[in-house]
Amino acid sequence: MATMKVHGAVYSTASQRVFACLYEKELKFEFVPIDMSTGAHKKEPFISLNPFGQLPAFEDGDLKLFESRAINLHVAHAYADKGNQLIYQDRKKMAIALTWMQVEAHQFDPVASNLGWELAFKPIFGMTTDTAVVEEKEAKLGQVLDVYEARLGQSKYLGGDNFTLADLNHLPSIQLLMGTQVKKLFDSRPHVSAWCADILARPAWLKVVAMQANN
Amino acid sequence: MATMKVHGAVYSTASQRVFACLYEKELKFEFVPIDMSTGAHKKEPFISLNPFGQLPAFEDGDLKLFESRAINLHVAHAYADKGNQLIYQDRKKMAIALTWMQVEAHQFDPVASNLGWELAFKPIFGMTTDTAVVEEKEAKLGQVLDVYEARLGQSKYLGGDNFTLADLNHLPSIQLLMGTQVKKLFDSRPHVSAWCADILARPAWLKVVAMQANN
Ligand SMILES: N[C@@H](CCC(=O)N[C@@H](CS)C(=O)NCC(=O)O)C(=O)O
Ligand SMILES: N[C@@H](CCC(=O)N[C@@H](CS)C(=O)NCC(=O)O)C(=O)O
Repeated sequence: MATMKVHGAVYSTASQRVFACLYEKELKFEFVPIDMSTGAHKKEPFISLNPFGQLPAFEDGDLKLFESRAINLHVAHAYADKGNQLIYQDRKKMAIALTWMQVEAHQFDPVASNLGWELAFKPIFGMTTDTAVVEEKEAKLGQVLDVYEARLGQSKYLGGDNFTLADLNHLPSIQLLMGTQVKKLFDSRPHVSAWCADILARPAWLKVVAMQANN
Repeated sequence: MATMKVHGAVYSTASQRVFACLYEKELKFEFVPIDMSTGAHKKEPFISLNPFGQLPAFEDGDLKLFESRAINLHVAHAYADKGNQLIYQDRKKMAIALTWMQVEAHQFDPVASNLGWELAFKPIFGMTTDTAVVEEKEAKLGQVLDVYEARLGQSKYLGGDNFTLADLNHLPSIQLLMGTQVKKLFDSRPHVSAWCADILARPAWLKVVAMQANN
């Protein structure tokens, strides 16, 4: 097996999504840091790996991929026999899990990314948080989490009874938002709160957190 | 085989994505119209099918799904032997196609949806187009299409040499934007322009267009 490479950054949520998946699958990989502060993601050699100039990019032998969720689906399928299962082999169960992976991408992420930027990253860069945006997005996140609360009352994980990519893909943004005022939206919903505690404590995720701490 | 049902609307781009897929696969389905003008998508029975209250929702026997791209992936895998192939069986080729499906979802769609709303739907509803938003999103769409132009110079379709969901999932927004000032952004890029002409002329897509015309 050729060495896998992740070109990314430890503080990039999209890179963290891929790290979490590779740790779950117990796969060895080489981490190639890309320095966004010097614009390395907008220049060669990186843009030959991802023409959109966004972290992460991934190499698995001669296969070159980008887009964190595509990388994770590839890894979960191609290395189904390694580490923890992150997909279902059963066609119907997988269809449901795919639906909730799309929910993460289309319902949760647009709102969570906005809030992460306003409440976590802007303060780091000395920029001013836009409170009107925060108010609007907080209300939207609350609506999404209401649906999650109902769903997690019926099944242990979002995609079904097993932990899958439908849960894992949420981890970077949840971790980020737990350090902001938005934490209350997760804490006030019992099933959501228990689900967050469960998935944030996974050994694979703790390794991703350790990468940030060691940086 | 139990009858498949699509709960949606002919003018809903996300519903059209699923219609296009089912026509490509030559699968019979029942179309259950949901009247968004009366808010039927925010009430029972629809919200039991999609708790986010968005069109479309899908039933395949006892399997209930939502999110158009998840429905399409399920259909393409579960009915691989029917109609036109929309995925690859080869793992590596599929990983590349999955990357470009994510590109549609994360790079193209957010910009295209915004422009579709401002330039196509707002005029219909008698609302005023926000020219500042249009200007910003047009510039972004141009950047995305520059990447597509380079990609389509290397492979016939976005996901590889075959037409796949990576192309199909674009169809509703491309059709919509071709009726607006944004058409010039597609027309001015030769490979993008040829690709649009090719995929918009597919018999399955023409059936989706006919559904709108007959409405
Ligand atoms: N949809 C992409 C998003 C990637 C993304 O937005 N990466 C950020 C870092 S977390 C980035 O590179 N931003 C710089 C930019 O967009 O120019 C994925 O999931 O991989
Ligand atoms: N990510 C969803 C988007 C669905 C969507 O936005 N549907 C629109 C119609 S095209 C809708 O129902 N809008 C009403 C709303 O969001 O309240 C999918 O692909 O199925």
